Amino acid sequence: MKGKVYIVGAGPGDPELITLKGLKVLQEADVIIYDRLIPIELLNYCKPKSEKIYVGKNIGDYVIQDDINKLLVKKALENKTVVRLKGGDPYVLGRGEEECMYVISNGVECEVIPGVTSAIAVPAYAGIPVTSRLYSASGFTVISATQAEDKLIDVDYIPKKGTLIILMGIRKIEELTNLLLKIRDEREPVAVIQNGTTQQQRVAVGILRDLTSIVKENNITSPAIIVVGEVVKLREYLWKFK
Amino acid sequence: MKGKVYIVGAGPGDPELITLKGLKVLQEADVIIYDRLIPIELLNYCKPKSEKIYVGKNIGDYVIQDDINKLLVKKALENKTVVRLKGGDPYVLGRGEEECMYVISNGVECEVIPGVTSAIAVPAYAGIPVTSRLYSASGFTVISATQAEDKLIDVDYIPKKGTLIILMGIRKIEELTNLLLKIRDEREPVAVIQNGTTQQQRVAVGILRDLTSIVKENNITSPAIIVVGEVVKLREYLWKFK
Repeated sequence: MKGKVYIVGAGPGDPELITLKGLKVLQEADVIIYDRLIPIELLNYCKPKSEKIYVGKNIGDYVIQDDINKLLVKKALENKTVVRLKGGDPYVLGRGEEECMYVISNGVECEVIPGVTSAIAVPAYAGIPVTSRLYSASGFTVISATQAEDKLIDVDYIPKKGTLIILMGIRKIEELTNLLLKIRDEREPVAVIQNGTTQQQRVAVGILRDLTSIVKENNITSPAIIVVGEVVKLREYLWKFK
Repeated sequence: MKGKVYIVGAGPGDPELITLKGLKVLQEADVIIYDRLIPIELLNYCKPKSEKIYVGKNIGDYVIQDDINKLLVKKALENKTVVRLKGGDPYVLGRGEEECMYVISNGVECEVIPGVTSAIAVPAYAGIPVTSRLYSASGFTVISATQAEDKLIDVDYIPKKGTLIILMGIRKIEELTNLLLKIRDEREPVAVIQNGTTQQQRVAVGILRDLTSIVKENNITSPAIIVVGEVVKLREYLWKFK
């Protein structure tokens, strides 16, 4: 007999942005294996006797990722219902696909439950829609600032037009700003949002040319999301906390 | 005294992918103004005496959009709690920002509650993660196949690399395929997913060169989402309905 692994998107920070489906499996789980960036209040929904295991890891820590994969399988093979709770959506730069493949390849059933992605909801809570007809934003691009082996993102991932949303960009903000200026207009509006959708949300805005100084002067730290595009201007009309 | 408008993302089709926050306001709403593409089962959560108004509209129907805006304000000014229930996420090609701006500019409070976007969850339910280190997919781009006035999307929205997710692409599939072939490799894997995340989900896969014939031979109709990129290959390992 075998358990099952659910890889669940916990949403961007506001605990009420979890899905009904995610909440239901969380309430039934025997084991919860959770990340650094999940809304911690969600653990209150778990069964009192459930086992809660924190596996928050630093960026690029491959050894620990391998340990997480093995832990998921080990617990499921003990006939447990396992929830792997990840910030945002498991398939948006979250390595959910690697965990799911590992679990399935070990003969254990695995289901991925999508979540509200930070890439869209964090700008939304700061009054910024990622698309808008009003600013000819008929599309948007989400990138990680770094690729495998901590290399800066390849410029070919960045289109000339459309809203650009950058995750994990604070640590290499100078290199990133220089890269963006090769493709996008230096006067394009930018927003940097720290701890988005939570009570600690902080937003700084300006233009692309000044992105590095916006981050430094406002002491923005991770987790933070950068938005580049005309849609940032809509914040003036849409910000709900105004 | 005034009511309030909540613009709520209903998620991609599976009714359990609504957020807890969205569900709560739906249960309290006096008036629900809903679109064609919401999971209809969600209306079962509404109060028995709530007023449910269907405003499903065809693409590009500006007159009706104007009527919807006015209806939101009219109902709120009657001191009602109004939920505007939209498929997917309100800010992903959904004109939620236009509705929110109109409501606020008429002096009525408005809050946008993000939803799980079809652009990410529909591929996920078909076993396709929009990002993956395994295929150097460090980012993804979401576009509408058409811009304002029914013009084909501008090629500058499409990057050379990264997963590409196209909404509303079926009606102009031939023009869209030709456009994509100008930028992306003709051998790139593609998937076309109709009625994603629902019991009626259908998936067809192939390579970009054959995109038009994949759509026609499989009689794919709207709503459908097109995914272009190496990540389509992961479907073989990740598809949960296998």
